[in-house]
Amino acid sequence: MITITLPDNSQKQFPEGVTSYQVAESISKRLAEAVLAAKVNDEVWDLNRPIAADAKLKLLKWDEDEGKMAFWHSSAHLMAEALEFFYPGIKFGIGPPVENGFYYDVDTGDRVISTEDLGKIEEKMKDLARQNNGYVRKDISKKDALEYFQKKGDEYKTELIGELEDGKITLYTQGNFIDLCRGPHLPNTGFIKAIKLLNVAGAYWRGDESRKQLTRIYGITFPQQKLLDDYLKMLEEAKKRDHRKIGRELKLFTFDDDVGSGLPLWLPRGGAIIDQLEKLARITETRAGYVRVRTPHIAKESMYRTSGHLPYYADSMFPPMELEGGKYYLKAMNCPHHHKIYLSLNPSYRDLPLRLAEYGTCYRYEKSGELFGLMRVRSLQMNDAHIYCTRQQFASEFRAVNDLYLNYFKIFGIDKYVMRFSTHHPSNLGKKYVDMPELWIETENMVRKVLVESNIPFKEVSDEAAFYGPKIDVQVWSAIGKEFTLATNQVDFAQPVRFGLSYINKNNQADTPICIHRAPLGTHERFIGFLIEHYAGNFPAWLAPDQAIVLPISEKHNERASTISAFLNNSDIRTFIDGSDNKIGKKIRDAELMKIPYMLIIGDKEAAGNSVAVRKHGAGDIGIMSVEDFTDKLKEEERIVFNR
Amino acid sequence: MITITLPDNSQKQFPEGVTSYQVAESISKRLAEAVLAAKVNDEVWDLNRPIAADAKLKLLKWDEDEGKMAFWHSSAHLMAEALEFFYPGIKFGIGPPVENGFYYDVDTGDRVISTEDLGKIEEKMKDLARQNNGYVRKDISKKDALEYFQKKGDEYKTELIGELEDGKITLYTQGNFIDLCRGPHLPNTGFIKAIKLLNVAGAYWRGDESRKQLTRIYGITFPQQKLLDDYLKMLEEAKKRDHRKIGRELKLFTFDDDVGSGLPLWLPRGGAIIDQLEKLARITETRAGYVRVRTPHIAKESMYRTSGHLPYYADSMFPPMELEGGKYYLKAMNCPHHHKIYLSLNPSYRDLPLRLAEYGTCYRYEKSGELFGLMRVRSLQMNDAHIYCTRQQFASEFRAVNDLYLNYFKIFGIDKYVMRFSTHHPSNLGKKYVDMPELWIETENMVRKVLVESNIPFKEVSDEAAFYGPKIDVQVWSAIGKEFTLATNQVDFAQPVRFGLSYINKNNQADTPICIHRAPLGTHERFIGFLIEHYAGNFPAWLAPDQAIVLPISEKHNERASTISAFLNNSDIRTFIDGSDNKIGKKIRDAELMKIPYMLIIGDKEAAGNSVAVRKHGAGDIGIMSVEDFTDKLKEEERIVFNR
Repeated sequence: MITITLPDNSQKQFPEGVTSYQVAESISKRLAEAVLAAKVNDEVWDLNRPIAADAKLKLLKWDEDEGKMAFWHSSAHLMAEALEFFYPGIKFGIGPPVENGFYYDVDTGDRVISTEDLGKIEEKMKDLARQNNGYVRKDISKKDALEYFQKKGDEYKTELIGELEDGKITLYTQGNFIDLCRGPHLPNTGFIKAIKLLNVAGAYWRGDESRKQLTRIYGITFPQQKLLDDYLKMLEEAKKRDHRKIGRELKLFTFDDDVGSGLPLWLPRGGAIIDQLEKLARITETRAGYVRVRTPHIAKESMYRTSGHLPYYADSMFPPMELEGGKYYLKAMNCPHHHKIYLSLNPSYRDLPLRLAEYGTCYRYEKSGELFGLMRVRSLQMNDAHIYCTRQQFASEFRAVNDLYLNYFKIFGIDKYVMRFSTHHPSNLGKKYVDMPELWIETENMVRKVLVESNIPFKEVSDEAAFYGPKIDVQVWSAIGKEFTLATNQVDFAQPVRFGLSYINKNNQADTPICIHRAPLGTHERFIGFLIEHYAGNFPAWLAPDQAIVLPISEKHNERASTISAFLNNSDIRTFIDGSDNKIGKKIRDAELMKIPYMLIIGDKEAAGNSVAVRKHGAGDIGIMSVEDFTDKLKEEERIVFNR
Repeated sequence: MITITLPDNSQKQFPEGVTSYQVAESISKRLAEAVLAAKVNDEVWDLNRPIAADAKLKLLKWDEDEGKMAFWHSSAHLMAEALEFFYPGIKFGIGPPVENGFYYDVDTGDRVISTEDLGKIEEKMKDLARQNNGYVRKDISKKDALEYFQKKGDEYKTELIGELEDGKITLYTQGNFIDLCRGPHLPNTGFIKAIKLLNVAGAYWRGDESRKQLTRIYGITFPQQKLLDDYLKMLEEAKKRDHRKIGRELKLFTFDDDVGSGLPLWLPRGGAIIDQLEKLARITETRAGYVRVRTPHIAKESMYRTSGHLPYYADSMFPPMELEGGKYYLKAMNCPHHHKIYLSLNPSYRDLPLRLAEYGTCYRYEKSGELFGLMRVRSLQMNDAHIYCTRQQFASEFRAVNDLYLNYFKIFGIDKYVMRFSTHHPSNLGKKYVDMPELWIETENMVRKVLVESNIPFKEVSDEAAFYGPKIDVQVWSAIGKEFTLATNQVDFAQPVRFGLSYINKNNQADTPICIHRAPLGTHERFIGFLIEHYAGNFPAWLAPDQAIVLPISEKHNERASTISAFLNNSDIRTFIDGSDNKIGKKIRDAELMKIPYMLIIGDKEAAGNSVAVRKHGAGDIGIMSVEDFTDKLKEEERIVFNR
């Protein structure tokens, strides 16, 4: 008999060779139906793989990322089987699960697969799924594996096998399809109830532009039809809310070939959003005891050698500028500059915590092919700050940072979020992680305690911390349920040591501060990209590019419109006049298209008095009020946000 | 007889060969005594050089830059004569007048000139000045000139002569000294009444580090002793107010070798000043109808080819980054990026004027040796904006920009300023200036009219405009009378054409806008450098890094101090507590040294109630008031500035 330990630390005895599926069955029939794969001693396994010795076991369902990954990985194999049916002799590159679904890179020779072909492949996949074919794992020698794929004529698989270690090679078979694969997989194809192939693209073999371009087919599958329906509805809505489309329509930002890829130019209406976000961050941070610094966008090579970004991070940095015999680099992060400011300030314990904030613009090199609207860019305006504190101050500083996040979530109406808390693994101390075991445990405990006490939903992931300390990645869901990773929050024991940061403690001894890197609003680029989708461009008035537009009904009301517009402008309200010759109906339609929160209509009655007829975007008329009352209304909307 | 036309267009007849001095004498004895040189047909001449034909004549006194230049140029020759007396065989490089005084670069062989030697040289110069020796001009052939200086053994002068055109070479002699020189000079040494040699430095021959290092001696002279006394007093005061010294003491900014020369890191206290300046500029500009954009700090080579900055401005730019087979440059100016935004907005006449503002950080390459504190840097945060307007809108836009300048001068207490208005010269159209004669005349007339009507002191300088349009350099004087060039204001006809900027005019035709480049607050670096000296670090409360410091008298008042500090902080007042164990006297002294505008002292009485004892920096106690009243007082000080 062997002992199986479940996540709640309960233990159960089973005969040697028991499978995870059998363990699930022993708990409940329903569980066994929902379970997709299992984590056995930190490794994800097929459900039907025999367990030979005592083990920790976690059963993985659809709500676990690792469950989804097994599901989609199996779906890629299913698609491959369907493809081989239609395109005999097809060769296969790689076919992994991804964030949403899976893909397979294939070489169909001179046959072309287009989006029109996806329907029939989908139908074939459904047929094959209904056959409930098992995914069967088999160990194979390198020699036999090579022989099999050489005979099959698949040079991609043979290339991959050539790089593997003999004794660690496995094949998976389902139905008529055999693939080189580490697994894990679903027990059988019957789990796959809903299938949608999404699109076809080109992709170089192994991402290398000098090699052959393969056909990449993307798909997604679900264990229930309803989940697929919801997903496709969300995709449809996301398309309408595409930040690139709305960004263009609302004139928020643009790109220009002469400036460069991934380098957005913020037009005045986008600039206004940025300014409001910065205003919010400044006020929030000032009241939270942050101070603001400014640092150049470049620095010499020596600084990035000290930080270790060179050579380890060089690929993500812009290439150097050679000047006066030395090299200057565009900054890819603000921390080293802030550490230099810390050094210059030479603080004592009385000056800690020192919270240095800066909306610093960083530059990171991303491959052209990976750039995507505002989501993947090369210039990043970060809501950055570094908090330097003592070990005793760490917990309260971390809690304050968390509160900042929660406050922002409320302001922006972000109801669904998860913090992914990545911790170290003791076995990797001194290798993957800086060797300060006590500090790791101490800070991780403090972070965990704060997360639990603040009732923040979080996922703890072992052995995924940064080299220099535990980290938190903040994932949020937009109003239509699309997931975004917006911000990270990292603890750093290593950089302060590398830069020789210290302070004189109460006992008059030099001590090293802990550094917290935090950026709750992420970068302007990604955060505004998210907000565009989240609000579908309907920004709340405090944040909208224009808060109000003044619409004179006819030319004779233009003068009054100017007076009102000037009054609002002097009250620091973002406004302008539609001075065109258009009829009022058209003016209103245009303003609605630009999603301007308030329309102030000026006709005979309004021109005579001091009032405006107010129309709210998407809601229609909300009544006549004095210009002063309207101003107060807007100011109050802003006050609520900024004083939250 | 010839006709002499004076600046007021009056004309007078004189015999051929009359000198400017004689003309001056014919007007008044007093004028003749004050005049230093003369401008004859746009060229500056010696006073005693005969005029052979009809000419325009402007007599130059000390209050004209060109008068001062002749004065200091002659003083350099006088110093050279004294040097040759003490150091026979001394060789001379160049000895020009500069902004404040003059220098001469000399080679004394193995003899060393140090500051201790300056006294005796000064005395000798005074002797020679009293001899009233005339400066005598003589035309000389290239051959004879070479022969003279070869015989004298001065290889520097022979090198210079070698590069001159025969027939255009002149020598000047005064007393025992002969120099190769174009002139012009004073009539005689007697004009030089007050002399001060300032310092000694090294300087490479022709600025070339591979060539010999010469000794550069700086001096300044005046036509009256009082002017020299005032100047030296100002220098003394300027030394105390040195922005580098105060910047260090008040912890405003720092430099770091790992970041790079000329790249200031703004510490929190400097960052606070920047933030307040930006707040002022934002409010002012928003109310003046500007909109704000954001652009990256880099762009591709092609953009700077279009703008013409490459190749013409390449030496002032940072070297390129080579990426994906192309070149990226750090921006040295914001205009090309703004032009791209204009293109993207594609405005019609209804959208003009379009005023795009950005606090864009630019990077310019300055040689290490030329860097100086915040005054000469490599990173420049500019209060930049570009106004695109029609020809009809130009005058009112230009006037509005001027009003902005005047408003800022009032806010910062800048009482003395001059606008240097540089215009084109018709003879250089198509060569030095873009060939649009009408537009030059039209815009220059409009600018001149606005300057006159606004009662702004200005100096018009012909033939010194930018290639693309007339420009204005703004010179201001600090509280102690030191001159700074802070900002420029340029009209641009050329760039809009190069970038293909256009708008659809009322007649439905494409037209080209005029562009105004303006930066009334210059760069943060230079402007704050100026303000540090101007205020001697005693920033007004609205601008000061910290507005108030809370000083608990003893430890038992710390809690009350915290409450007060938190209240002020939540009211967005920049404040902190002196939480040290020091006695109150020491706390006050420390706060005075940091030049913090207000000190709030908390003792038993204050801790019991809601009041604070307020002490004003440099002024002492100003009474006891409630925390709310103090807050209102500060808010009112700020309101006055921002609503001016």
